[in-house]
Amino acid sequence: MPRRLILASSSPRRKELLSMMGLSYVVFSPDVEEDGEGLPGEVVMLHARKKAQAAALIFPGDVVLAADTVVFAAGQVLGKPRDPGDASRMLSLLSGRVHQVYTGVCVVSGEKLIEGTAVTDVRFSRMSEEEIAFYCASGEPLGKAGAYAIQGLGGMFVEEISGSYSNVVGLPTALVRSMLQDASYPIFRRE
Amino acid sequence: MPRRLILASSSPRRKELLSMMGLSYVVFSPDVEEDGEGLPGEVVMLHARKKAQAAALIFPGDVVLAADTVVFAAGQVLGKPRDPGDASRMLSLLSGRVHQVYTGVCVVSGEKLIEGTAVTDVRFSRMSEEEIAFYCASGEPLGKAGAYAIQGLGGMFVEEISGSYSNVVGLPTALVRSMLQDASYPIFRRE
Repeated sequence: MPRRLILASSSPRRKELLSMMGLSYVVFSPDVEEDGEGLPGEVVMLHARKKAQAAALIFPGDVVLAADTVVFAAGQVLGKPRDPGDASRMLSLLSGRVHQVYTGVCVVSGEKLIEGTAVTDVRFSRMSEEEIAFYCASGEPLGKAGAYAIQGLGGMFVEEISGSYSNVVGLPTALVRSMLQDASYPIFRRE
Repeated sequence: MPRRLILASSSPRRKELLSMMGLSYVVFSPDVEEDGEGLPGEVVMLHARKKAQAAALIFPGDVVLAADTVVFAAGQVLGKPRDPGDASRMLSLLSGRVHQVYTGVCVVSGEKLIEGTAVTDVRFSRMSEEEIAFYCASGEPLGKAGAYAIQGLGGMFVEEISGSYSNVVGLPTALVRSMLQDASYPIFRRE
């Protein structure tokens, strides 16, 4: 039986990006603690590994892919905002500055564990209070790490990025492609 | 009567990006010659201006937005491929190299003409012949400048970019936002 690809994440953005890569997958969202402290690159790697290993216990014969994304701005790791006030605070931190988006990716295939991290610099426009209020009122910031969606309305506040774009959406596709190839998972020919 | 926003382009990607900015618009695609030769930054600016001026003659009381995008790789300006063979040739040029994407944007509002250009560096993975054949067979390269869509399947061959992402899709949204504000067109409050 061909191995299946298991996506250990419930993020709609990650599902979309994988589908865009032409891949079929099964979604399994393991319930793991996400309270690690530390450097952003370590935090995302730890969370991705935890999720991948939890899913690999359930699907031992398949290939598991897990990821975790955070925004790092002004020395702070920003996850998802708690409420519109928290979103507004995060956007004030991003306004007129460069921040980093980190995604840790972990692939588990049998005995093999493959890890990788993508970092992208994102430069935000200066946002006026009116613009922040407008954007928060749209509802888009909720549920997004760092309180914005580059692929949505938030994109117009992004002056430029340096690095992988899909990383900022939630899954660095070129890295995932190369990691799945390392795990001998067929990307360009279906098993 | 409030001024309308006229999009002088029939590109589905530009329509999507404008909608994503929360803007309403009327599409009018003027029939202009696109055969200019020269530097990529000049070519896209000339085409965008021609389209904007042609549309402004029809909609004199409104705000017209036009754009043109090309890919510049290995000293060549790449437009849309003629057929799958041409797409395959373009992708071989992009494979394993950095290329530039240029979009010229022109806004006409009454007597005012505002111009801007965005340039983004895009680094492609090395593509094997099998990967190029796979990608061409998907049909996605046809109709796309440079024979790829960063927002589609093609995204997984993009290692990194430097500059505006939406520029690579076809319309640099942060630049458009600032140009529409220069033209006093309301982005965050509806007229």
